[in-house]
Amino acid sequence: MKNIDVCLSPELIHLHNLNNTIVVVTDIFRATSCMVTGFAHGVKSIIPVATVEECKKLQESGFIAAAERNASKVEGFDLDNSPFSFMDERLAGNKIAMTTTNGTLSITKAKPTAIKVLVGAFLNIGAIVNYLKSQPYDVLILCAGWKGKPNLEDTLFAGAVTEALKDDFFVSEDSAILAMRAYQQAQANLLGYLMNSSHIRRLQGLGIHKDINYCLQKDLYDVVPILRGNELVIL
Amino acid sequence: MKNIDVCLSPELIHLHNLNNTIVVVTDIFRATSCMVTGFAHGVKSIIPVATVEECKKLQESGFIAAAERNASKVEGFDLDNSPFSFMDERLAGNKIAMTTTNGTLSITKAKPTAIKVLVGAFLNIGAIVNYLKSQPYDVLILCAGWKGKPNLEDTLFAGAVTEALKDDFFVSEDSAILAMRAYQQAQANLLGYLMNSSHIRRLQGLGIHKDINYCLQKDLYDVVPILRGNELVIL
Repeated sequence: MKNIDVCLSPELIHLHNLNNTIVVVTDIFRATSCMVTGFAHGVKSIIPVATVEECKKLQESGFIAAAERNASKVEGFDLDNSPFSFMDERLAGNKIAMTTTNGTLSITKAKPTAIKVLVGAFLNIGAIVNYLKSQPYDVLILCAGWKGKPNLEDTLFAGAVTEALKDDFFVSEDSAILAMRAYQQAQANLLGYLMNSSHIRRLQGLGIHKDINYCLQKDLYDVVPILRGNELVIL
Repeated sequence: MKNIDVCLSPELIHLHNLNNTIVVVTDIFRATSCMVTGFAHGVKSIIPVATVEECKKLQESGFIAAAERNASKVEGFDLDNSPFSFMDERLAGNKIAMTTTNGTLSITKAKPTAIKVLVGAFLNIGAIVNYLKSQPYDVLILCAGWKGKPNLEDTLFAGAVTEALKDDFFVSEDSAILAMRAYQQAQANLLGYLMNSSHIRRLQGLGIHKDINYCLQKDLYDVVPILRGNELVIL
């Protein structure tokens, strides 16, 4: 039987052997929710980059560029990190370059050794789960967290995927059990569980309740973003 | 108000500012449970060291030495890592040198920057909580985990301390909220919550159910081990 495990922070990814593993990167508030939304609205590809400088270079070479640091848009870029910005019809058919505080860094950390790297959010969780069931590989959910620290919303997503796969995969590692049990505890009211979380407070300070509610919705979209070379595309 | 936070792995300790913080290191199965048991039975001091080589040197200079790797005693040392070994009356009044896979490494990682380093386990949780309430400092519970990965039992201890301090301290960081909620979920049956955990399986493979049950008991002892220089002593 295949294994499913959870990595609660990108700073712990080196502890996992990814040779036979699909990594699902998640950054619920808001990078991977933005990516999923963009693909569902016709974005052709997204190049995730780790630094603002790389993102600027791609912008100068013609990409639409999205750069976020500390939950706010970096000056001089085209898009902020709200999923509603990724519904803009002018993005359809276009390539986007993107850097965020946590999410894109996690993608670049998983890339060198994972069999495949997917991008997951509550918005496409059903599509992700179905794809993982269809594949012969182990699974690791990589939580982007906040500047290296685990966070609640990404842990809950990891737990939701683990819960959905627990009859088809071994759930034997402690981080996966912890995340799954947290999701079981939270699932009746995800927002209630998150109400005191650090990132909810950070986002509420920015006045983006609408984004929070949106990112906690399940299965709005049936897309599975996957990394091909340096680009995320949909399967 | 003071803050309480939780660090789920020693590999994440660099993300925390410890300048005004008491760090409570916990390694429930079994290093810190052993230490607390030893002090409660008259051990004079314990020198935690990170490597087997350092432990061997201290043994050669006259210390009683305990060395564990991968949950088993290292050949040539005096004590294994069972708390029952630390009840031996021949240890009373003596100094012990100790190295373990996770617990002693966590102590050495916290030492350079923390205001104080304590050693906590369920066995002395009430004494730890009372001491932390009496101090003017922030608190970080450092979970030793297993080879860098978070584990359930240390997370539950961190959650139990957070739960006990939540009216006197701010609980604002996600790892602390996650641990506290896990403890709330588990408290009626800690062993039941842990039954599928990786370390329980590892320990059960070694036939030490007795140690597991012992280490999950609360408030057997009223000792607060604290690091003074290179030595743990009791307050």
